[in-house]
Amino acid sequence: MSNDESDAPAAVSEPQSDYDLSQFRGERLLSNNTDRKTVCVLGKFPQLSQEDQAIVILEKNAFTEEQILTADREKNFFQFISTLNKEFINDIYGNFTLLAKPEANTIKTTIIYPATAKHISKYTNQNLFIIRETPELYETLTEPYLSKGQFSLDWVYNILEHKQEEERIVFEDPDNDNGFILLPDLKWDGKTKETLYLIAISRRRDIRTLRDLTASHLPLLKSIRDKSIATIREKYDIQESQLRIYVHYQPSFYHFHVHFTYLRHSAPGINCERSHLLDTVISNLELLSDYYKKSTLSFTVRETDTLYEKYEEIINERNCKKIRVE
Amino acid sequence: MSNDESDAPAAVSEPQSDYDLSQFRGERLLSNNTDRKTVCVLGKFPQLSQEDQAIVILEKNAFTEEQILTADREKNFFQFISTLNKEFINDIYGNFTLLAKPEANTIKTTIIYPATAKHISKYTNQNLFIIRETPELYETLTEPYLSKGQFSLDWVYNILEHKQEEERIVFEDPDNDNGFILLPDLKWDGKTKETLYLIAISRRRDIRTLRDLTASHLPLLKSIRDKSIATIREKYDIQESQLRIYVHYQPSFYHFHVHFTYLRHSAPGINCERSHLLDTVISNLELLSDYYKKSTLSFTVRETDTLYEKYEEIINERNCKKIRVE
Repeated sequence: MSNDESDAPAAVSEPQSDYDLSQFRGERLLSNNTDRKTVCVLGKFPQLSQEDQAIVILEKNAFTEEQILTADREKNFFQFISTLNKEFINDIYGNFTLLAKPEANTIKTTIIYPATAKHISKYTNQNLFIIRETPELYETLTEPYLSKGQFSLDWVYNILEHKQEEERIVFEDPDNDNGFILLPDLKWDGKTKETLYLIAISRRRDIRTLRDLTASHLPLLKSIRDKSIATIREKYDIQESQLRIYVHYQPSFYHFHVHFTYLRHSAPGINCERSHLLDTVISNLELLSDYYKKSTLSFTVRETDTLYEKYEEIINERNCKKIRVE
Repeated sequence: MSNDESDAPAAVSEPQSDYDLSQFRGERLLSNNTDRKTVCVLGKFPQLSQEDQAIVILEKNAFTEEQILTADREKNFFQFISTLNKEFINDIYGNFTLLAKPEANTIKTTIIYPATAKHISKYTNQNLFIIRETPELYETLTEPYLSKGQFSLDWVYNILEHKQEEERIVFEDPDNDNGFILLPDLKWDGKTKETLYLIAISRRRDIRTLRDLTASHLPLLKSIRDKSIATIREKYDIQESQLRIYVHYQPSFYHFHVHFTYLRHSAPGINCERSHLLDTVISNLELLSDYYKKSTLSFTVRETDTLYEKYEEIINERNCKKIRVE
């Protein structure tokens, strides 16, 4: 078996170093992102195995500035057009379907073979639910789940203790109460301004989520905000007015951290059902020290998340509760 | 001149019924959306005119389920592959660049010719700024701007008075204080569940934005929430746990309305810097009746927005304010 992630029956095939995709038989569309022009397809290569499954991920590649603007006719996109089919013309607006030669219009392709049940689950569009977490639901369902502490934070502590990723640190404030480390998020290449994404990780280890914050944490929050803004301005030449600064609820790991992304970049997870602007958090705590103890916070869960199991009954109850429409 | 939108020098060329794109000379990339694989390019067709400009918009088309899963070899995407170039293989993960025959990998193309200055502005990525609006800034800059009331709301009143779009109304509560009309947003086709988007428009005409809300409006907010949820469940078979229910700040028109979108649908404007979950709004007003008078609210403006002019000085001041990094 080629990996240890799966609890599926052992696959018998070996990974291949090349594939004949014309032999691929798609069986199920795991997901189709029509915005991003990306599909994940589950299927088989019958000539390799009748049982083992493969996942094929196809993503159309973005245009590049070089390709569009170059004066080099060997590279210029518009020199690779084979046909322009007219759809309709309305005054100054013309609509066409363009056929371009393959080398100017490539598709990024990933093949996972043999794919396990875990891979299939990972690449399948999962049902998503929004939960309206009252303070009472937090106390009875979410908090007991968090306090079990089943998630290892060793990788966070390794960063804070300079055991790992030391060379990636962009800024460090060593203060025990209000200190933090700022470093590039793993999703960022550390260079491209347009996709800037850093995270600030607090040195304090006792804040799991927004729910743990009170006005006593305002100096920490303002320190993270102001020093990170100044660092990002100096190091990356991006102004405060170009930054989205926010906290996730639920976070992906339960140690306090703040996200910094370029405002124009549609980073994953910036939706209003998940992200809370740090300025709003600060304003809330200034208004009411126990704001996050008393407020209703919404968050989303996927069907395979452990928290979903805790809330399944509540979701079903609310879905069945009929409100009379006059 | 072929249209009356522009204040640019009159264009002399006529719109064409066909174009030779290989003659197109790109001069400037107006925008490049690498997520959506879409570019807008400004340039010229020198054989048509040396002065007039054209905008060419290229968008890679999404994959279709039919294309991926069909058993018909004449239509199946995997039969249209010309080359699969290996990038790297790591155990069960293989990465490739795929060259597909043009007819299986088309590009939607729009040509605007001759393009005016307004077209160029419309298709250009505009600078975006995030503004941290304190209650004081609201009073001194935003509120005076709103109270000038330069925006016509006639189209909203036409809906409320059944003069327009009556047949589109999905639900109506005629109560003078807490009543509202629920109807499909213009961006929604009214049918496709995956992209569901409705808006609820209050009958009251005295709420311009979040800032005007107090606890006295809780019955209105809860009525909109509960009755719309029930209507959407009955009419579209979508449960409450699948709905994102939110308010924009700044809104696109200054008459109170609430957005309902399918949770899995990435509708425009759902980012945390613009959208506020209705459940959060209700919770805030229950905690503090004057929450929206006292809180700091952030919002974004584009360089061409009238509100930007009001805030330009403040944005520049904050950008210049250097915070010392230790």
